[in-house]
Amino acid sequence: MNRQGILIVVSGFSGAGKGTLMKELLSRYEQYALSISATTRAPRPGEEDGKSYFFKSREEFQQMIEEHALIEYACYVGNYYGTPKAYVEEQLADGKDVILEIEIQGARKVKEQFPKAVLLFVTTKDAQTLKERLIGRGTETLEVIEQRLARAVQESEGIEEYDYLVINDELETCVKEIHAIIESEHRKIERSMELIHNVREELKSFAKGES
Amino acid sequence: MNRQGILIVVSGFSGAGKGTLMKELLSRYEQYALSISATTRAPRPGEEDGKSYFFKSREEFQQMIEEHALIEYACYVGNYYGTPKAYVEEQLADGKDVILEIEIQGARKVKEQFPKAVLLFVTTKDAQTLKERLIGRGTETLEVIEQRLARAVQESEGIEEYDYLVINDELETCVKEIHAIIESEHRKIERSMELIHNVREELKSFAKGES
Repeated sequence: MNRQGILIVVSGFSGAGKGTLMKELLSRYEQYALSISATTRAPRPGEEDGKSYFFKSREEFQQMIEEHALIEYACYVGNYYGTPKAYVEEQLADGKDVILEIEIQGARKVKEQFPKAVLLFVTTKDAQTLKERLIGRGTETLEVIEQRLARAVQESEGIEEYDYLVINDELETCVKEIHAIIESEHRKIERSMELIHNVREELKSFAKGES
Repeated sequence: MNRQGILIVVSGFSGAGKGTLMKELLSRYEQYALSISATTRAPRPGEEDGKSYFFKSREEFQQMIEEHALIEYACYVGNYYGTPKAYVEEQLADGKDVILEIEIQGARKVKEQFPKAVLLFVTTKDAQTLKERLIGRGTETLEVIEQRLARAVQESEGIEEYDYLVINDELETCVKEIHAIIESEHRKIERSMELIHNVREELKSFAKGES
């Protein structure tokens, strides 16, 4: 691959099926790589450093913040989570399309630092479906479901800042749709400048009779 | 279909295969409609008014220009050719993605009046292939081929004004690629505002316990 990778931010309502979509994309197409987060939380059994997460001490994490080595970071229940810039940049340079699954605040920070990043928001076809999926999981209490729906209202306020809205009604269709969006993004003029330049120069040499 | 159609401008080098690509798109997918040009040239045997062209007298055409009923128009070998706005708007409102095959000057005028139009430029993978295809047709003299290549140099200067660069290396792949680009454009946030609005309002009603 000699094409430059695209940084893809995926956000979406809890219950919209982001996790499954990402898993499918990664297993079907070699061109994608998942960004690996850095965290200060302790590894759980089976979690590997540099694979599940980059596990860091609080001091190491603080230093990464100070050195601007993180694209974005946040604190959840006493632990830091962030996106190491170096890993993302390496994968992009290697031609991989790097997927970052984060929320709106993080998405904004990514867009600031990577203006060419493509921002996708995943939704169900309507709110009723979202509610039913959350209930259907059977793993959440009614209270948690209500919290998630309240949160979805907040999340929905930021949708206009994304580039694409993807409706996860049928998994198969949705995976193909996301892949088509990324492939189309690779066809954008600003990502084709090298080819344009080459064709133009070659045409000029023909016009001068240099062929 | 209740989605709004997209206006698609297709330009490209002579020899890049635009004509075949358009024919394939139209025959495979019902969602596309080809824009029908108005012209002052006389109908040729078999050409039907309102199908091949809208045939107009010079006076009628002049009137259309004055009434801004044409999105763009140009004069070739003494005859006028133009794109009637009304026909395009009707098809778009009907949910059709309308394809307009025109050159850069026309493309600019379309973009002014339809800022949401999607502009595609079709090229071969390199200039050598373009030259070989023009020679391979066997229908053109060397002089004509040289004229076309010289013209291609000029056309290539405007490529940056397009949205996408499509490489017609293999017809089958290219048709699918153009279709994927248009489908992806339908997923753009600015084209999904109605759905976003509905989901948001429904979520709010849930949060208020109105379900």
